[in-house]
Amino acid sequence: MNEHVRIFEAGGPVMSPDELEAAIRAVGTERYHDKHEFHKLLHSGNLTKGQVAAWALNRYVYQEAIPRKDAAFMSRVHDRELRREWIHRIQDHDGHPPEEEGGLERWLRLTDGLGLDRDYVTSMEGALPATRYACEAYVYFVREQPLVVAAASSLTELFAPSIHRERISGMLEKYDFINEPEMEYGKRRLNQAPRDAEFALQFVKDFAKSRYIQEACINAVRFKCDVLWAQLDALHLAYVVGMIPPGAYRPEAD
Amino acid sequence: MNEHVRIFEAGGPVMSPDELEAAIRAVGTERYHDKHEFHKLLHSGNLTKGQVAAWALNRYVYQEAIPRKDAAFMSRVHDRELRREWIHRIQDHDGHPPEEEGGLERWLRLTDGLGLDRDYVTSMEGALPATRYACEAYVYFVREQPLVVAAASSLTELFAPSIHRERISGMLEKYDFINEPEMEYGKRRLNQAPRDAEFALQFVKDFAKSRYIQEACINAVRFKCDVLWAQLDALHLAYVVGMIPPGAYRPEAD
Repeated sequence: MNEHVRIFEAGGPVMSPDELEAAIRAVGTERYHDKHEFHKLLHSGNLTKGQVAAWALNRYVYQEAIPRKDAAFMSRVHDRELRREWIHRIQDHDGHPPEEEGGLERWLRLTDGLGLDRDYVTSMEGALPATRYACEAYVYFVREQPLVVAAASSLTELFAPSIHRERISGMLEKYDFINEPEMEYGKRRLNQAPRDAEFALQFVKDFAKSRYIQEACINAVRFKCDVLWAQLDALHLAYVVGMIPPGAYRPEAD
Repeated sequence: MNEHVRIFEAGGPVMSPDELEAAIRAVGTERYHDKHEFHKLLHSGNLTKGQVAAWALNRYVYQEAIPRKDAAFMSRVHDRELRREWIHRIQDHDGHPPEEEGGLERWLRLTDGLGLDRDYVTSMEGALPATRYACEAYVYFVREQPLVVAAASSLTELFAPSIHRERISGMLEKYDFINEPEMEYGKRRLNQAPRDAEFALQFVKDFAKSRYIQEACINAVRFKCDVLWAQLDALHLAYVVGMIPPGAYRPEAD
């Protein structure tokens, strides 16, 4: 794994918490998926409804992995206070009836609006295999890496609000098949992501106290950017280049 | 592993759901830890305060593993409805401030009452290594076994209410150093355990549809009984026979 090679080669003194934060934020500037070609096409209104549906369908796989990733994290936490702090992340996605429907429900409203059948979406049968592998790699990473490194992998949320803002305004403006209710997911994340990111960032700054672990945390953010990037790569090849693999969702001609 | 040998040797037709339930209940009759010698000593008032403290201190390790076990389960569940149903188990133990303090808090009230320092208890430093191994084996089992088998391992809760009832009345009556507030944990479990056990039992009856998986579910209950039994074995050797291993809690002379 490149990540491990990088860590063992890493030298230098222990970073201050602020230096660590700066290094983590620099990863986002360098490789967050808002720089991906598919992202630009999506937000600038240059995709067909079928291509947007393919994105939403595949992105569901990622959304669906998040509460499982957070449960995997909690399964390793011996500190009751930390579990109590973390559990709302699961409920943010799964919902907590009756008052909170949850992010997955909001995401399914988007796929509904795009004309996709719910059972088809939630079965994940039409998703690209590369999407599933990338999302599952995230769950495994969080289950297996040191806890502070696992927490660090969530820090792409530091970069999420701008992408959600851009997506909401861009997609509402550019696509006549997208309306306000379908964009509720992103609107809620505008509040949820910063709160979660702040907590995780402080956790990482408090507990990553050796250079080795600090480098591992920075690499965790790289790893997570890769997970997001790989999903857009797969979408691009399948639905922009047009090489849809066997079994994957095929948009009807728009 | 004996469990696996048993499964591969298992033959016979697929059981009806009721036959499966009967087979699971028979495991409890045969090997639930209410039949253990240490359990009998505990409930009949024949232990010293130090021995009861050793039990409570070690049993904390098990309590602490439960919400992590449930999170491990959830990390593998793709069905949002099932995760929504399962999540209260974590909150039953961790609490959900301000309205629910949680089972761990109630257990710590017991260890408080027995004169144990909370930091010492929650550090688990004084717990027997065999206790820790047994509890962690449970978390790993749930993380790794097929989901229906993992759920089946929780079914010792079918047998729990009678042990809680017996413990509450026996310990309150027999030990002058145990009072009502310390027994709150067991009282709450009298309501929680049957509800959870019913749900898990129905889940197992609904989804264990091949003989192979049915045998694996029955063996999961055996496995779980072993996990509980092994904890009492370790307590018995250390605190009844008197062979306390290095580093483990040593009661002051009562």
